[in-house]
Amino acid sequence: MACSRFEYVKSFEQDDSILPNVWIVIRIDGKKFHKFSKTHDFEKPNDENALNVMNAAATAVMQEFRDIVLAYGQSDEYSFVFRKETAAFKRRSAKLLTYVTSLFSSSYVMQWSKWMNLPLAYAPCFDGRVVLYPSEQNLKDYLSWRQADVHVNNLYNTAFWKLVLEKGLTNQQAEAKLRGTFSADKNELLFQEFGINYNNLPAMYRKGTILLRKRVILGEKSRQAVVPLHEDLISSQFWKEHTEILGKYVPGTYNAPQTLPRLVEMQINGKELDDEAEEPQNLAGTS
Amino acid sequence: MACSRFEYVKSFEQDDSILPNVWIVIRIDGKKFHKFSKTHDFEKPNDENALNVMNAAATAVMQEFRDIVLAYGQSDEYSFVFRKETAAFKRRSAKLLTYVTSLFSSSYVMQWSKWMNLPLAYAPCFDGRVVLYPSEQNLKDYLSWRQADVHVNNLYNTAFWKLVLEKGLTNQQAEAKLRGTFSADKNELLFQEFGINYNNLPAMYRKGTILLRKRVILGEKSRQAVVPLHEDLISSQFWKEHTEILGKYVPGTYNAPQTLPRLVEMQINGKELDDEAEEPQNLAGTS
Amino acid sequence: MACSRFEYVKSFEQDDSILPNVWIVIRIDGKKFHKFSKTHDFEKPNDENALNVMNAAATAVMQEFRDIVLAYGQSDEYSFVFRKETAAFKRRSAKLLTYVTSLFSSSYVMQWSKWMNLPLAYAPCFDGRVVLYPSEQNLKDYLSWRQADVHVNNLYNTAFWKLVLEKGLTNQQAEAKLRGTFSADKNELLFQEFGINYNNLPAMYRKGTILLRKRVILGEKSRQAVVPLHEDLISSQFWKEHTEILGKYVPGTYNAPQTLPRLVEMQINGKELDDEAEEPQNLAGTS
Amino acid sequence: MACSRFEYVKSFEQDDSILPNVWIVIRIDGKKFHKFSKTHDFEKPNDENALNVMNAAATAVMQEFRDIVLAYGQSDEYSFVFRKETAAFKRRSAKLLTYVTSLFSSSYVMQWSKWMNLPLAYAPCFDGRVVLYPSEQNLKDYLSWRQADVHVNNLYNTAFWKLVLEKGLTNQQAEAKLRGTFSADKNELLFQEFGINYNNLPAMYRKGTILLRKRVILGEKSRQAVVPLHEDLISSQFWKEHTEILGKYVPGTYNAPQTLPRLVEMQINGKELDDEAEEPQNLAGTS
Repeated sequence: MACSRFEYVKSFEQDDSILPNVWIVIRIDGKKFHKFSKTHDFEKPNDENALNVMNAAATAVMQEFRDIVLAYGQSDEYSFVFRKETAAFKRRSAKLLTYVTSLFSSSYVMQWSKWMNLPLAYAPCFDGRVVLYPSEQNLKDYLSWRQADVHVNNLYNTAFWKLVLEKGLTNQQAEAKLRGTFSADKNELLFQEFGINYNNLPAMYRKGTILLRKRVILGEKSRQAVVPLHEDLISSQFWKEHTEILGKYVPGTYNAPQTLPRLVEMQINGKELDDEAEEPQNLAGTS
Repeated sequence: MACSRFEYVKSFEQDDSILPNVWIVIRIDGKKFHKFSKTHDFEKPNDENALNVMNAAATAVMQEFRDIVLAYGQSDEYSFVFRKETAAFKRRSAKLLTYVTSLFSSSYVMQWSKWMNLPLAYAPCFDGRVVLYPSEQNLKDYLSWRQADVHVNNLYNTAFWKLVLEKGLTNQQAEAKLRGTFSADKNELLFQEFGINYNNLPAMYRKGTILLRKRVILGEKSRQAVVPLHEDLISSQFWKEHTEILGKYVPGTYNAPQTLPRLVEMQINGKELDDEAEEPQNLAGTS
Repeated sequence: MACSRFEYVKSFEQDDSILPNVWIVIRIDGKKFHKFSKTHDFEKPNDENALNVMNAAATAVMQEFRDIVLAYGQSDEYSFVFRKETAAFKRRSAKLLTYVTSLFSSSYVMQWSKWMNLPLAYAPCFDGRVVLYPSEQNLKDYLSWRQADVHVNNLYNTAFWKLVLEKGLTNQQAEAKLRGTFSADKNELLFQEFGINYNNLPAMYRKGTILLRKRVILGEKSRQAVVPLHEDLISSQFWKEHTEILGKYVPGTYNAPQTLPRLVEMQINGKELDDEAEEPQNLAGTS
Repeated sequence: MACSRFEYVKSFEQDDSILPNVWIVIRIDGKKFHKFSKTHDFEKPNDENALNVMNAAATAVMQEFRDIVLAYGQSDEYSFVFRKETAAFKRRSAKLLTYVTSLFSSSYVMQWSKWMNLPLAYAPCFDGRVVLYPSEQNLKDYLSWRQADVHVNNLYNTAFWKLVLEKGLTNQQAEAKLRGTFSADKNELLFQEFGINYNNLPAMYRKGTILLRKRVILGEKSRQAVVPLHEDLISSQFWKEHTEILGKYVPGTYNAPQTLPRLVEMQINGKELDDEAEEPQNLAGTS
C-alpha cells in the first residue's frame, strides 16, 4: 500500500514478446576475448580445454532450458536455437536473452577449474543478441554461416600459427604471407611446409561443436544427455540424420565413440543429471 | 568469400537502439532464488554475506561500465542506472542489457568464495530487463519504488522469522499472525515481543544498498572507488547530497565510516583497482 | 547550415524495418463507421454501393503499390497482403502502413460520388495496423479468420434486419430472438419465415471481396487489372486456382462474368489504367 | 465459435504502446508532391490556396483529436504534437499514427474544392511517422528544426522562381546562379534585382503555419477554435506567450486580425464546429 505513489513506474516497462512461429536464435559472444585468451595463456590456434569450458557452459544452458533444440559453438561464441513453437517465458525477448546469457556466464566460471589449470584471473563477460528466422531454410543458412565462418577462420589461424610458432615468422610476416591466399593455397602450404593434412585435424577445430539432446545407450539402459557433435551441418545429410531438430521433438540415439566424451560422462555421473531428473519440466515456470 | 551464400542471414538482425535523452535502467533479478537461498543455507531474514556477494558483483559491473552512475540492490535484485546521455555501445539495448547481466552473473560466482563458507552448489541465473525513464522525477520514483519495496518486505520478513525462529511458530502460523497487519503493528510486535527497535537494525537490511562512484580519502591521497551507501533515497536530502547522479558527472567525496567497508577495501588494495587503472576508458570501445 | 543546431533531433527517429521473409499484412478499419453508415443512410444489412466505395479505394491502393498481391475486404475493413519478399520502402513498417492507410482514405473520398447519391457529410477516418505472418499456413488462416467473420456477422445481420424491417420487431426484440441461435437456426429462420435461401444471397455479402491482379481478356487483347472475386478462400481450391499469390508472382487470367464489373470497367476505360501504364514500377522508388 | 480454428492468428499482433511521459510527434509528408503540384498547377514558389488546403486538413485533425496541442505545417508536410500525458488510444503507436494520417488524407480531399479551382486529378497520398521527444527542449528543437527548414527552402525558392519567372532563366541557369550563395546573398539579390524585401513577404511563406487551439472573442461571446499563427517559434517569446502548449492545457485568447482568417471563419460558422459541439470528448473512446 505504502508503495502505491511510486508504483506507476512499472507502467514504463514495455512488452517485448517475440512473434509466434519463428525460430528464436540467441547468440552470445565473448567480450574482449582476445585479451582474455592471452591473459589465460590459451594454446594457439586452438585450446581444446578452453573450448570445452565453452561447451560445458552451453551444456548447462541446454540442461536448464529444455526448449533449446540445438546449440552451436565455435571460438568465443555460442548460438542457441529454441524450437519454433516455444512458449517459454511467454516468448519475452529480454527474459529468454538474459536467462541464456546469465546462465552461460555463471556456468563458464563454474566449469573453468574442471578443465583449466590456470585460475581464472577475472570475470569473463559475454554479450548476447536475439535473431529471428521465419523458415527452416533461414535457420539452416544461419548455422551454415557460422560453420563456414569457423572453417575460414580456423584454416587461416592454423596456417598463421604454424608460421609463427614453427617457422619463427613475426605476426606481421605471417600475415603478409597469407594475405590474398585462397583456401587451396593454405591447404597446400600446410601440407608442403608442415606435412599437415588439414582435414585430419580434430573435427572440433574445423567444424565447431554442435550440441544436441540424445539418448545415450549405457549397456542395457539409456539416459538422455546433451552430446557434442562435430559434423558438417551445411550438408543435407546432417538434417536427415537429426530429424528431431526441425520435426517433432523426440531425441534420437547418440552414436557414441568408444569412450564417452568427458562432457557426456560428467552428465551421466555427475550432479548435473541428478538435478535434471528432479525437475524435468522446469522451463515453463516463472522464476 | 565462401560464406557469401549464407551471409544474407545477418540482415535478419534488427536495430534496437534506445531513444536518446532518457534514463536507461537495467534491473536484474535472481531466478528461483528462494530455492537457491535454501540450498546455500542463507541466514534468515537477511544474510549479510550473501547480500555482499550481490554488492560485490554489482561493484564489478560498475567498475567495468563507467556510464553507470548509480546501482541499487536489495534481496536478489539489482538495478543499474546509466547516465542519460550515455552513448555506450551506441545505446543498443541488447548489448547494454547482456553485458550487465553477464558480468554480474560471472562476477557473482567469482566473488562467492570471498564471502561465503559453503561452496556454490550450482550456477546461479539472473534475468535482466531494460526500462526507460524520461524525467528525473520518473527515475527518482523508480528507485523510491524499489526502496519502499525493501522496507515493506524486510519489516514483514523480520517479524515473520522472529516468530518462526524464536517463538517456534510454523510458517503458516506466522503468516496468519501477520496477515492484515500494518507497518505500525509489526513495529509494535517486534518491540513488545522481541525488544527490537526496527529502526536500529542494520541499514543495509532496511534500506538496501546504493552504489556510487566516490573519491575515497586515504590520508593525503585519494582514490576513486565504488562505495556502498545505505541511505534513504526517497528523501530529497539524498539527491541534494549526491548531485553527481543527475548533474554533471563528477564524483563527490566518500564520507567513510571509521573502518572502510570490505567492499571498498578490496577495491583499494586488490586486483580490481589495478585492472581499472590500466583501462580507464574501456566503456566506449566495442568488444 | 543554419539548421545544424537543431538537426540532432533527427537522431530520435527509430528504425522500424520489418523482419525479412514474413508476410506483411496491413489491415485498415473504419473509425466509428456505425455512426458513419447511419449518417449516410446505408442500406441494411448490406449497402452494395458503399461496399463498392471500399472496393474501389482498395483497388486504387493495389494499383499504386504493386507488391500487394491480394486484398480482402468486408464491412468497413480491408486487409492488404504484401508479397513475402517485398523490399518496398525498405520494409519500413510506418512507411508501408501509412502509405496504404493514407491512399485508401483519400481514394475513399475520391470514389464516393461515383457510387453514392448522398454527398459525403464529413471526412471518414480509418485506423491501420501491421501484422506479420511467417508461414503460408498462418497467412491462409488469417484470411480465413476474416472470411469466417464475415459469414458469422452477415448471417446474423441478414436475419436481424429481416426481423426488424419486415416483421416490425424492435432492435431489442430481434436481438432477443437471435440470442443463442446457431447458424443452422438462422438459416432455417430465413427460409421458413422469409422464404430466403441464404446461400443464394449475393456472394459479395456472404464472402466479402478478394482483390487480385489478373489479366483481363478483351477480345483479341488483354490488359492487366485488379479484379474483384467473391470466392471461398477457406477452401484449398482457391489457393490451387490462384497460384500467383503464394508462388512466383505472375498474374493469372480473369474468368470474367458476362458483363465486366464496374470496378474493372473503370480501370480498363478510365484514367486509372492510363496512370498505371505510365509508371509501371513506381513501387520501389522513394517519394 | 466457428472461427476458433483461425482465431489464433490474432496472437500475432504485437503491442506497440508508446513509452509514457514523452512528447509524441507525428509528421506526415506528401508522397511525390513535386509531381502533384505540377499536375495541379500550383503557383510558384508558394501557392496560398494549396497551403490552406493543408492547413484546413490539419485543422480537421486537431478538431477530432483533442490531445493534439500544436500542429506545424510547411510545404507538403505537417507535424502534430500530442500532449505528453496523452492516454488517447492507450498510446498505441499505430493507432495514433494511422488515425492522424488517415483523417488528414481524407480531409485534404474534402477541403480541396473549398480552396482550389482545378478539380483534384487523383488521390493524394501521405506518409507518416512517429517520433518521440523526452524533454521540452527536444520538442522545441524539433519544431525549430522544421521552421529553420522552411526559412532556408523558401528563401531559395523565392529567389529561384523570381529568376525563372521574371528574368527568364532556365531552371539550370537559376540553380547555377544560386549555388553556393548564403542567405545574405539571396536577400541581397531579391532586393537589388527585384526590389523585394524578403522580410515583407507573407509570414505564412516565411514561417510556416502553427495551429493552436484558442478562445476566439466574438463580440460578447467567445468560442474555441483552431487558429493559424505564422510566428517565430524558435524565439523564447513564442513559448512565453502560448504557455498552454507545455504547461497546464488551458487555451489562451486568440489575438485575431481585423478580419478573421477564412480557416477560423469556417469553424465558427460551419458544420465543423457543430460536430465538435456534439461530441466534446471523442478522443478517449475506441472506434
